[in-house]
This record gives sequence, structure tokens and C-alpha cells, in this order.
Amino acid sequence: MSELYEERWSEGCRLLLKRRTLYRAQSRYQTIEIFDTEAFGRVFALDGIIMTSEFDEFIYHEMLVHPALQLVDTPRSVLIVGGGDGGAAREVLRYPSVERLELVEIDALVLEAAQRFLATGASLADPRVQLQVADGSAFVKGARGPYDAIIVDASDPIAFAEGLFSADFYRDCAALLSPGGVLVAQSESPLDPNFRHYPAQIRSCLAELFPQAHSYLATIPSYPYALWSFALGSARNPLELPAAAALPRGLRYYTAELHAAAFALPQFMR
Amino acid sequence: MSELYEERWSEGCRLLLKRRTLYRAQSRYQTIEIFDTEAFGRVFALDGIIMTSEFDEFIYHEMLVHPALQLVDTPRSVLIVGGGDGGAAREVLRYPSVERLELVEIDALVLEAAQRFLATGASLADPRVQLQVADGSAFVKGARGPYDAIIVDASDPIAFAEGLFSADFYRDCAALLSPGGVLVAQSESPLDPNFRHYPAQIRSCLAELFPQAHSYLATIPSYPYALWSFALGSARNPLELPAAAALPRGLRYYTAELHAAAFALPQFMR
Repeated sequence: MSELYEERWSEGCRLLLKRRTLYRAQSRYQTIEIFDTEAFGRVFALDGIIMTSEFDEFIYHEMLVHPALQLVDTPRSVLIVGGGDGGAAREVLRYPSVERLELVEIDALVLEAAQRFLATGASLADPRVQLQVADGSAFVKGARGPYDAIIVDASDPIAFAEGLFSADFYRDCAALLSPGGVLVAQSESPLDPNFRHYPAQIRSCLAELFPQAHSYLATIPSYPYALWSFALGSARNPLELPAAAALPRGLRYYTAELHAAAFALPQFMR
Repeated sequence: MSELYEERWSEGCRLLLKRRTLYRAQSRYQTIEIFDTEAFGRVFALDGIIMTSEFDEFIYHEMLVHPALQLVDTPRSVLIVGGGDGGAAREVLRYPSVERLELVEIDALVLEAAQRFLATGASLADPRVQLQVADGSAFVKGARGPYDAIIVDASDPIAFAEGLFSADFYRDCAALLSPGGVLVAQSESPLDPNFRHYPAQIRSCLAELFPQAHSYLATIPSYPYALWSFALGSARNPLELPAAAALPRGLRYYTAELHAAAFALPQFMR
């Protein structure tokens, strides 16, 4: 039986999707929903906000992971904070050099649902992956590291996810990186009236911690306002890809040209 | 009194906007609506599809016009096919060298409504602008030219607008260009199941007519699937901006870096 999913993007603006619900649960933290749609394929939503859709998750996950990992000569050890759907993990695991991938997700039920219902969840069973169920901001205070890359795949900065958008959190992350290590975080849409201060705010936090701190962009149609930003902190200038950088196989969005292009910001963000 | 605007993006996917209607008319060709919304400001829609919104029209119009005009050393004479809202005209008129701007719009009622209700419509009263009410594909068969740039700002390739997406039409346009002239056309979203063959199809048409034919991209949140493509035909390689190119004042999106970046295509479009 099909019913409607309704997502409120802003005052007086809603996205409606005809859906067939596969899973719906209330965890300690949030409402988890997984459903099939014609427009976006299988969708995973938390508290009424789409986290990933089968239609465009490749754009989000490739653009979250590869600009960072391409800057590391030989990524061996990676931490993902959030990302319980497994999409970011799938992209990290494309690098044969990765020996250890820790993924810290606050909500055990998200990990369970992703493994049962989402294609992206398959990566979570990879033997290189160590799942940790914990609050990311607490985890990074006690973690040992070092990591060659830390990838922050947080939901919107509301309630318990707010800690993943704080200067303290980024400082703890930076302290866990190996020399030459990189940090990347999704930093919301520069067009969303509710969150548009985040791209500059997060980039400023990273500028305190890294020689290089830059925003870059990608288009994710199933996210409100579609124009999505990421913040990257690194030792190396992200516009100078190492000559050794080789693209992993199987990518559908990311290319070396797109890497450089993504860092060109519209006038209104400069 | 507020009511709802509902736009069908694809099977089972709709955008809902709370609106206050300012204008609604049925012309010989289409239903014209202009209304105010909180999410996107003032919106102009034809046959239930948003053409421009106050919120993001600057992205669409800047990216439609400036990549082309920046490739012309001194643009003097320009033709816009479609674009009755006046947004593309506003961008062209930013170039002081432009002496003559012809705009051919099929629907006189669109021109009238734009001038009454849209901020973009103000450009249509500029003394350099000559408005022609005609079918663009017929107009270019009889036009004299030459034009330094032709800008095709068409609605989706449905019904009467289909002619603006044909190989014949582009050939007629190319014949009207001065040496070194450029042609640019909006070429739909590469992600929209209904129209995703257009970017490659239009680029192929232009490749028959120009030494250089390229697709480029921008993000327009109020358009279905947001990732929007344009096709540009030129003598010059669009990635090599002339040294003389100077940006007009007042731009909010386009920059020289974004010009080059926009031509980097995702893997799935290559």
C-alpha cells in the first residue's frame, strides 16, 4: 500500500513523495524510516529528513570521500563519524591501501536498518570495518588514532548531532590525524535559510587547525536546496592533487577535473 | 489568502509551495502564473512549471549568459530566443558594449506579465532592447543578424517549445552569428528521467555547427533535480577565456573560476 512522505524544506515549502514503507522505527535518538519511491528509489530518512536516496547517494558519498582521500598518498587508517548508512564506508573501501576503517555511529538501530534494507549497508560487513556505537564527539576525545583521514558524515546540526559541528569537536579530530592527514565534513547548504551560515563557520574552524581550509560544493537533488557544501582541512593545498593520485574504480560522479572544479565557489559564498 | 502551488517533478514526486497569487492568465499558448512564496520569493510559472524564482534566478540567468558573453571580445549585438521574463536580458545589458539586444518571445502575455510583476521584467524597457513577439524557430529563419551571441532561454521541450530543441533551429541560429559568435542554450537536467538525453543531444547538434561544443552545469534549486545543463557552441575553446575578458559588475554567482569549473562534468555525463 502506498502512502505519502512529506518533507518540510522551509516555511511553506514541502517535498512530497509517493512511497512504499519498508521499515519504520523509533530509536532512542530518532525516527528511522526506509521506503521505496519512484522518483528517488530507496530512501533512508531520519526524523523526516532524507539522509540518502538510491538516486543520488553516489553524488553525496563520492564527493564527501574522494576529495579528501585523493589528497592522502596512501590512506591506511580512516575514521568515519556518523555515516551509519554505509555509503561513505563503501567509498573509503574502494582504496585497496585502507587497512582499518572505524565507523562511529550513535544509533545502533541505524546500523541494523542499513544492513537489512540499504545497498550501501553492505559495506558495513567488510572485514576491514570496525563499527563503534557511540556519540562521535565523545568518541574522538578518547580515540587513539592516528587516522590518515577523518570523514564527518553528520545529519543536520539539530539536537544530538550539534556536537559534530562544534570547534571542540574539530579540534579533537585534528589531534587524531597522522602527519599529512585530512579532515572533511559535510557543511550544509549555503542556500538553506536555516543552515547557510555553516559553510563559512565550519571552514573558519578548520582554518584554525589546518594550513589549508576550503569549502567545496556538489549538487544533491534530494537534499533541500540541492547545492551542498563540504569543508576540508588539510596540510596540502587541495587544488594540487598529488601526481600519484589514482582514481579508484567504479566511480559515477567524481573525476580529477571535478575535484578542482568543486572548489570554485559562487560569488555569493566568497 | 494563501493557497498551494503543486509542481509535479516526476512520477510520485511533487513540490508544494504555499503561495499568494498575484497573476493568473491563460494565453493562447499556456497558463501563466505569478505568485509570492516564502521559500523562493516571487515565482513565475508556465503550465505548472517554475520558470524563474526570485530566490535563484540569478544563478540560472548568470550561468546562461556570462559563459557565452565572456567568450566574445566585444559583444555588440545579441539575440535572446525566449526569456520573456527579462532575466537573461538583464544579464546581457550589463555589458556596456551591447548596442542592440533583440528578444523574441512567442507569448505577448508573458512579456506583459513580466513587466508588471517581475523584477527581471524591468530590463525589457531598456532602450537597447527590441522585443519581437514571434515563434523563435520561425523568427531565426527570417532574421538578418549578424549577432555576436544567441542565447536560447526556452521552456521545457514540450509542445510549441519543442522547435527550440531541434537541429534545424540550431543551424538557423548558427547561420546568424558573426565570425567568432557564440550560441548557448539551456539543455535541461542530466538527472531528470524525462529530459536527461537532452544535454548530449543538444551538444551533438552544436558539434556539427561549431569548432567547439561543450556542456556545462549549474545548480538551480527551484528546478526539478536542480543540476542544470547548458550547451555552448563557439569558435574559441570556452576553457580559454580571452585575457581581455572583464566581469561586469553586480554578479552574485558567476566568477572566472566558476566559468572553468562549470565545464567539468560528472563521470556519468562523460
